[in-house]
Amino acid sequence: MGNYKKLTSGLFISFEGPDCSGKSTQVNRLAAKLKDRGYAVLETRDPGGTYIGEKIRHFVKHVGGENAVCDEAELLLFCAGRAQLISKVIQPFLNEGGIVICDRFADSTTAYQGYARGFDLNFINALHEISTCGCWPDITFLLDLEICEASSRNKTRLIQNNESDRIEEESITFHENVRKGYLKIASENPNRIKILNADEDKNILHDLIINYVDDTIRVNSSQV
Amino acid sequence: MGNYKKLTSGLFISFEGPDCSGKSTQVNRLAAKLKDRGYAVLETRDPGGTYIGEKIRHFVKHVGGENAVCDEAELLLFCAGRAQLISKVIQPFLNEGGIVICDRFADSTTAYQGYARGFDLNFINALHEISTCGCWPDITFLLDLEICEASSRNKTRLIQNNESDRIEEESITFHENVRKGYLKIASENPNRIKILNADEDKNILHDLIINYVDDTIRVNSSQV
Repeated sequence: MGNYKKLTSGLFISFEGPDCSGKSTQVNRLAAKLKDRGYAVLETRDPGGTYIGEKIRHFVKHVGGENAVCDEAELLLFCAGRAQLISKVIQPFLNEGGIVICDRFADSTTAYQGYARGFDLNFINALHEISTCGCWPDITFLLDLEICEASSRNKTRLIQNNESDRIEEESITFHENVRKGYLKIASENPNRIKILNADEDKNILHDLIINYVDDTIRVNSSQV
Repeated sequence: MGNYKKLTSGLFISFEGPDCSGKSTQVNRLAAKLKDRGYAVLETRDPGGTYIGEKIRHFVKHVGGENAVCDEAELLLFCAGRAQLISKVIQPFLNEGGIVICDRFADSTTAYQGYARGFDLNFINALHEISTCGCWPDITFLLDLEICEASSRNKTRLIQNNESDRIEEESITFHENVRKGYLKIASENPNRIKILNADEDKNILHDLIINYVDDTIRVNSSQV
């Protein structure tokens, strides 16, 4: 990372929210903007981002029928993939002073497997402790979206791409519980999580995000 | 399972011990004997036994170098595979009155990831609670072997088969801790776990095992 601007302890940014809330678009635009400014930026995704993580992503999202994962395996696979992502990719990059931008992270597990599937939240927190090794995002942007809107966007995308996604195809009630979970997590972590209205214009959202990241860089880190 | 002899709640038997302690031989011979007697018998292995479980087995044992799993991912992957094995294979077979014979089970995680890698045993027990859904073996045969003997058998096998195995290639101290762990677990579960000397003649071991299983079937289950 010789020629890049570095931050003393790196900066770890995650994006959360339902599929089709515009996370990927905002991840890409934020990454491009920060790269333009000379920072070392890593875009990654959870599940995913490592050899094993990408295999896990495939299992949990796209393997159906009799081979579909049970709820317990799903929960543990997400956490296993995250442990690998943290130890092999995210933590080393932060240690070098880089900026990591991650599409989903541990809050997804709390919202989907905890609040929506109903796994015990204390157990999920114990899993997070093991799988994150204490490495949590400095900033999390929650792209909040009414479920009817998210569901409609999602169906359109799945049909257009001729895709199926085991979790995104869950019931409306499931996704309503995910949303409630996200909002609860955000209320418990007001310093880390910034809620954004995903219905807002993309450019306005991007400006809000980059301004918030700029403020955080200014306040929390000295450039070295 | 129409033509097979059935047991009221099935019978779940696991084999534990280091690699090269002769587990697979005894699993095969016990399964053959019980099949001969007319029982519905399922031989399986942990990790493994399901589509995703076999993928996990490959990751944890044979993927090395920069893609090798970190210790946290290893622990969680073993438990994820076990959850899938229980819910999709073992529990349904037991529910039908069959006999399941499994090469390794949750005690392996307690011994290897708990006692040898040093993960917190309370956390591992919480993982077992989630991943086994309360389904534990009725009988566990622990094939106990001095580490120097196990290590020597293992090296010979790996060289002969031109194989590598990430976990079996751990240090002697690691495997000594696994053995101590197994003996501790056995001392805490004297009703379930039967310790056998893996240095004993194979035929004698087989006779001990089948006699013990026969006694258990006689005492614990009524044939229906």
